[in-house]
Amino acid sequence: MRAVMARRGAVAVENVEDPVAEPGQVLVAPRACGICGSDIHLVESQAAAPDLVPPMVLGHEFVAEILDYGPATSRILPPGTLVTSVPFLDTAGGPQLLGLSPAVTGGLAERMVLQESRLLAVPEGVPAAHAAVTEPLAVGVHAVAAAGMEPGDVALVLGCGPVGLAVVAALKAAGHGPVVAADFSATRRALAVTIGADVVVDPAEHGPYTRWSQLAGPALPISPLMAGPVRANAVIFECVGRPGVLAAVMESALPHSRIVVVGVCTQPDTIVPAIGTTKELALRFVFAYRPEEFEMALRWIADGTVNVAAMITATLPLSAAAEAFGALSLPDEHCKILLTPDTQEIV
Amino acid sequence: MRAVMARRGAVAVENVEDPVAEPGQVLVAPRACGICGSDIHLVESQAAAPDLVPPMVLGHEFVAEILDYGPATSRILPPGTLVTSVPFLDTAGGPQLLGLSPAVTGGLAERMVLQESRLLAVPEGVPAAHAAVTEPLAVGVHAVAAAGMEPGDVALVLGCGPVGLAVVAALKAAGHGPVVAADFSATRRALAVTIGADVVVDPAEHGPYTRWSQLAGPALPISPLMAGPVRANAVIFECVGRPGVLAAVMESALPHSRIVVVGVCTQPDTIVPAIGTTKELALRFVFAYRPEEFEMALRWIADGTVNVAAMITATLPLSAAAEAFGALSLPDEHCKILLTPDTQEIV
Repeated sequence: MRAVMARRGAVAVENVEDPVAEPGQVLVAPRACGICGSDIHLVESQAAAPDLVPPMVLGHEFVAEILDYGPATSRILPPGTLVTSVPFLDTAGGPQLLGLSPAVTGGLAERMVLQESRLLAVPEGVPAAHAAVTEPLAVGVHAVAAAGMEPGDVALVLGCGPVGLAVVAALKAAGHGPVVAADFSATRRALAVTIGADVVVDPAEHGPYTRWSQLAGPALPISPLMAGPVRANAVIFECVGRPGVLAAVMESALPHSRIVVVGVCTQPDTIVPAIGTTKELALRFVFAYRPEEFEMALRWIADGTVNVAAMITATLPLSAAAEAFGALSLPDEHCKILLTPDTQEIV
Repeated sequence: MRAVMARRGAVAVENVEDPVAEPGQVLVAPRACGICGSDIHLVESQAAAPDLVPPMVLGHEFVAEILDYGPATSRILPPGTLVTSVPFLDTAGGPQLLGLSPAVTGGLAERMVLQESRLLAVPEGVPAAHAAVTEPLAVGVHAVAAAGMEPGDVALVLGCGPVGLAVVAALKAAGHGPVVAADFSATRRALAVTIGADVVVDPAEHGPYTRWSQLAGPALPISPLMAGPVRANAVIFECVGRPGVLAAVMESALPHSRIVVVGVCTQPDTIVPAIGTTKELALRFVFAYRPEEFEMALRWIADGTVNVAAMITATLPLSAAAEAFGALSLPDEHCKILLTPDTQEIV
């Protein structure tokens, strides 16, 4: 079969062996699969250390059609059913991350294997392309759940790439607002509005904290004179993940803010802890999602609560994988790019 | 009157004007007053920038005897009553921090002025020296409250200076355990045991995380395969406040740990945010205490729940202030040093 292989820092369609469904597993044909920032990072890490990061078939944001079942399966969903799944496959060596592990085949391929116990049927009538956004949306659902939002909380979402947009979408889907979203890109700010942001800010023109501070109300002072537990209605979602952002967020945050760190900054970063102290800030680092948050994301896509169509800025055939990865290096132009089988139109 | 003045980085007893009780205020005679790490930092900051940090009378950990009332007071507590208070005084310019502000006189003096509305009477029979530890103990009470401890949580307290010991004491007083405490100093580890630590660790001999990890149970993996909200019973209280500690804590913490940052690190510090991400860590910066936590600290001292006598490693007269500040530069030797009036024995 043909599959998008990341090898030594380059992406190309290669012919690879078809995967085989082991006991408890299902052979499926991906119908659409998104490219994630972590795919880009993986390719970059291969380029930086080609002998350390092995080749692998990418793709963990997939929707697929059931082709056949492996042994020891209950076969409840008939072949042809459109499914998605959290991107994990059980192997003898433990669960492997589909699409970011050399041990298993990701979703940017003509075939892949999923765990039957983790299949979620895509509800009737939901386009495959929309269901392929379940995984990135689930990241937003998880971040919002971790924030412990309460009525009256005012969220500031910093960065409106796919992660920031997923947070905006999840906030609005869960009924929270107002949501202030900030990004330097006009394209991304427009997307944030489409997805539901109440206020968007261009940080080049206005500090993103000014409008948010107005909405979140006067800053609560930090003092032994305050009685009772102190909880500001000010929540920041850091969805940029680059060095320097965390320090800037802490510097500008209102006292008692909760900061949910959704962006992933893999480089060392400098903060001034005493700023956290004098404002009693809370930093909550979050990662991925739970199975029920993944299900919630699919439900919100299926019932139209979240307008994921807006997040899909391009759909290309698998054979255009290298072009798609190149396009995502211009992040202002794109949010989510999906790849679909060369031989089949996306439905 | 005589008062301990910090001036251009040096500490000396000077003759200063007696303070005057304004409306709503009370004139008191301090009976004992502790020296805090922030007093040392204030003197150091004066030494570093003598023209920027003004002279002031130090002392915010005080217990005092009521001498006289100012105008517009209700005078419920009779003169002679032993009192303490959160260290704030209302002035025309807003509340001022007693003992860390040039605008008001701190507790390392023969007289000071307190706000009547904030007075707490020290219960009968409680030695003044013990009541003087209310303020530092309240810092621990607040940190523990902010941690949101639940039954079964295992705390690791890093650093057993006055702040760390206050956290250990507050944890045990609130019924939490087991408590693991780590410090390089044998003297401080012994104090931690006296205060109630269940396990003490010398980081020079064993990683402080090993024993704690055993008590906190197996690490919860981070994976989309986990269902439900994930909460580890692993809580770390960072009570050191020096650069590098936060990064080391994040590196060694169990996944899903809550890290309560009680130590104050005023210098820039480098962390790797992605370590927080892959472990879903929560960092909670805390500062000072609330009035009800201050009251709780006094109650626990008064009823013997907390053995504060162990935390007081020296009591010296005001005239020995410079000697006392010098002794605290050897932190291994001392926990809390109290200064008392030259003319009166501490009771």
